[in-house]
Amino acid sequence: MEMDTLHELYVDELKDLYSAENQILKALPRMIKAATHKQLKQGFTKHERQTRQHVKRLERIFRSLGEKPTGKKCVGMEGVLKEGSELIKEKPDREVLDAGLIAAAQHVEHYEMAGYGTVRTWARLLGHDDHEALLQQTLDEERDTDEALTAMAESSINVEATEPEE
Amino acid sequence: MEMDTLHELYVDELKDLYSAENQILKALPRMIKAATHKQLKQGFTKHERQTRQHVKRLERIFRSLGEKPTGKKCVGMEGVLKEGSELIKEKPDREVLDAGLIAAAQHVEHYEMAGYGTVRTWARLLGHDDHEALLQQTLDEERDTDEALTAMAESSINVEATEPEE
Repeated sequence: MEMDTLHELYVDELKDLYSAENQILKALPRMIKAATHKQLKQGFTKHERQTRQHVKRLERIFRSLGEKPTGKKCVGMEGVLKEGSELIKEKPDREVLDAGLIAAAQHVEHYEMAGYGTVRTWARLLGHDDHEALLQQTLDEERDTDEALTAMAESSINVEATEPEE
Repeated sequence: MEMDTLHELYVDELKDLYSAENQILKALPRMIKAATHKQLKQGFTKHERQTRQHVKRLERIFRSLGEKPTGKKCVGMEGVLKEGSELIKEKPDREVLDAGLIAAAQHVEHYEMAGYGTVRTWARLLGHDDHEALLQQTLDEERDTDEALTAMAESSINVEATEPEE
């Protein structure tokens, strides 16, 4: 593949995000099942709904570009998600598992924030104002999710993990 | 491996970051070499110096814990860095390469921000005030780097990439 214009780089990064979002959609049911804290389970479930919207927004952008969203596997997200699935396999205490799942999810969110921040800026530079608005909307939702996860990490969920088991 | 305390999860995540930082140190010379814009080259060079400090801070924390920093390979960072090295191999136009390198570097920074945010919070919960201060310092530097990269992406570097080649 040759990428000699910013446009091609833009489409390439959008494909990367499309692959990332679909990998997340596949991973989320496992994370929802593994999470024990009610607030965390609900948070993941809410994010699953949002992720479906993110996929739809990307598909809308691809349609307007006359491009197909497929053909790229996001190896970055693959690596990021592997960390979370390895943790689940290790079957640690449930509070510790929750704390680890939060950490894994924050890696996922940050990966997406980097990607959406990038394509949002490129959409602006390329004059795709409609894309910019859609991508900013997703970026804001990823940021909100990350902040909600930080709040959970700082509150009861992790504190429980420092206390001895019954 | 069993992880039945937050402490073990903390050490595990610190090892993950130690592996990530060392992978970045290995990748940075290639990124410095590939970057053409002076400001970007200087930014990467500055970040290389900072990364050595981040490694030293982690080693200080490991010493105080009586733990060894080795034994874990950060598969998340491996995936993230692969994206950047694949781009370099594709040999796109130099302005596009710069734009892509910025995007790759922002994925790296966000990955680290997620990791350092997590261990900083866990250090606080575990009462390691000295660690918390060191980890916050690194987190602030990663954030500053990410902001500098965003500024570069929004300014001349990327705009050049939208203009036709001479």
